[in-house]
Amino acid sequence: MKLATIKNGKRDGQLVVVSCDLRHCLPVPGIAPTLQAALDDWEAAAPQLQRAYEALNAGAGTDAQPFDEAACHSPLPRAYQWADGSAYINHVELVRKARNAEVPASFYTDPLMYQGGSDSFVGPRDAIYALSEEWGIDLEAEVAVITGDVPMGATPETAAGAIRLVMLVNDVSLRNLIPNELAKGFGFFQSKPASAFSPVAVTPDELGAHWQDNKVRLPLRVDLNGKPFGRPNAGEDMTFSFAQLVAHAARTRELAAGTIVGSGTVSNKQGSLHGSSVENGGVGYCCLAEVRMYETIEGGAPKTPFLKFGDTVRIEMHDDAGRSIFGAIDQTVRHYEEKAR
Amino acid sequence: MKLATIKNGKRDGQLVVVSCDLRHCLPVPGIAPTLQAALDDWEAAAPQLQRAYEALNAGAGTDAQPFDEAACHSPLPRAYQWADGSAYINHVELVRKARNAEVPASFYTDPLMYQGGSDSFVGPRDAIYALSEEWGIDLEAEVAVITGDVPMGATPETAAGAIRLVMLVNDVSLRNLIPNELAKGFGFFQSKPASAFSPVAVTPDELGAHWQDNKVRLPLRVDLNGKPFGRPNAGEDMTFSFAQLVAHAARTRELAAGTIVGSGTVSNKQGSLHGSSVENGGVGYCCLAEVRMYETIEGGAPKTPFLKFGDTVRIEMHDDAGRSIFGAIDQTVRHYEEKAR
Repeated sequence: MKLATIKNGKRDGQLVVVSCDLRHCLPVPGIAPTLQAALDDWEAAAPQLQRAYEALNAGAGTDAQPFDEAACHSPLPRAYQWADGSAYINHVELVRKARNAEVPASFYTDPLMYQGGSDSFVGPRDAIYALSEEWGIDLEAEVAVITGDVPMGATPETAAGAIRLVMLVNDVSLRNLIPNELAKGFGFFQSKPASAFSPVAVTPDELGAHWQDNKVRLPLRVDLNGKPFGRPNAGEDMTFSFAQLVAHAARTRELAAGTIVGSGTVSNKQGSLHGSSVENGGVGYCCLAEVRMYETIEGGAPKTPFLKFGDTVRIEMHDDAGRSIFGAIDQTVRHYEEKAR
Repeated sequence: MKLATIKNGKRDGQLVVVSCDLRHCLPVPGIAPTLQAALDDWEAAAPQLQRAYEALNAGAGTDAQPFDEAACHSPLPRAYQWADGSAYINHVELVRKARNAEVPASFYTDPLMYQGGSDSFVGPRDAIYALSEEWGIDLEAEVAVITGDVPMGATPETAAGAIRLVMLVNDVSLRNLIPNELAKGFGFFQSKPASAFSPVAVTPDELGAHWQDNKVRLPLRVDLNGKPFGRPNAGEDMTFSFAQLVAHAARTRELAAGTIVGSGTVSNKQGSLHGSSVENGGVGYCCLAEVRMYETIEGGAPKTPFLKFGDTVRIEMHDDAGRSIFGAIDQTVRHYEEKAR
């Protein structure tokens, strides 16, 4: 089934079931007012939501409304946990290569993961707000899952069974703040502002055969200012599956229902700068930092600038028939003063 | 006023107003069912909660119940954000001195802060669960505040005005997992399992003159296995006030109501290993790591072990008359298998 959260003036919005073709939706206040409420009591809520979804797809009932992606908040407008992995080691290899450093061997067996802020996500069609372009504003297109409760020390098999929903993410990163912040030793904080998630979150079964080994085996479609920028397959070169990422997060503590675990920037192994861009036949990139790393490796310095105010980022994923699965994240970078006005 | 959350079988528990002397409490479902709900609509809820608090203290009404700290969950059983600073630079200085390293000059002007997990806190009288003593289980006794909404780029003055409540924390840390995790560069994750907070959260005015410059100028009382272990003054040697810590957290993003910001391990400047312990007239320590650092600096290696299964930790703060302000965190370390049983 497919679920979304419609903005209604409240902090958690209103849960709706969305038709498979993303054309209609149905509020389900009798089942759960919000997505977090449904996740809190998933065993009871999920079968009812599934029935509502099937009825909506069959055109039954009269309460269906047109579904408007622009009216959506992120599926969880705020969450109790956002833990973002870095499962595409190719991305890490490029980072290291650009600064002439080796990738530690442990990185291939022990996932990188950071604790992200989850108190107020951005809607999929809302602006990326920043106070300065000098922060080095970058997108990071990723896949993420939402889990149920997970016990401490869960195996990847147990973790796999706790995966409830899949969605897309734009994990906005402030590149120019990262070096100083990581040098302090406590990880990202100011360099990771609010993320945005796709309008729709779907159960893994919606992905059919493309949900394989707890990975999503489909191309992620990233456009920058209306032009194709990335088309990497999210199922390829993913060193750690979502089951492994969730188990990593749960090694020393329980995870509570509604925990979001991200894949990290999707990144496929490619050759050179020239051949890796979409226009030259490559699969492109899911963040500006990656093309800048190719530029650094080959030319000694990055050339492509980070995002400027007015730039747009679109992140989407299509099924085999070219239909959008999750709806599109589509954001414009804006100065925070415009929001305050 | 004083607020607490009573366990009621639901994930967020039930909000109660607690009498100043911690003897009685009053459910306030007509005002807000949970503390998060009150924080979400603080302008409306706070005056009503204050009136209920005053009536409870005056002995008015008949719905008052005996207040039982052992029936409490953490004031926010789960939160949308837990950002923990490291405001007592003495602690950082000892960490560095123990490994013969300098403290970077920027650490005195730019706070250390990490994003903690907030999906499922531990109750103040619940066990500290771990799967292995080999993890190096340690307490960290701290003070924390809960904020309302804070705009991006807020000044310390604006941040100060957004501080809603104050409470105590045991920020459990797994010391033996920290070096490898920080070496990976993404900060703490597995090394910071679930924290526990004091039974009661109080508005800053409850601290009277002891809430000064957005610091709590009172000794934090830490007992280990029933013996005094730490008595440092939380208002001394705090390099960054809570206003500064909240502003740091908000530099590049908005903070949503219910954000918890911690002080980091309370630590006062002292002299030597001998003189710093409570039994020798010092103010002691708020974590085992600190006494181990003194041992390393003076003897080349730590001697004091980390926590073992069965060890107990008690964290409290008294007013001038010796009365508990927040109630006591009082936890026993246990193997997670005991919970699963």
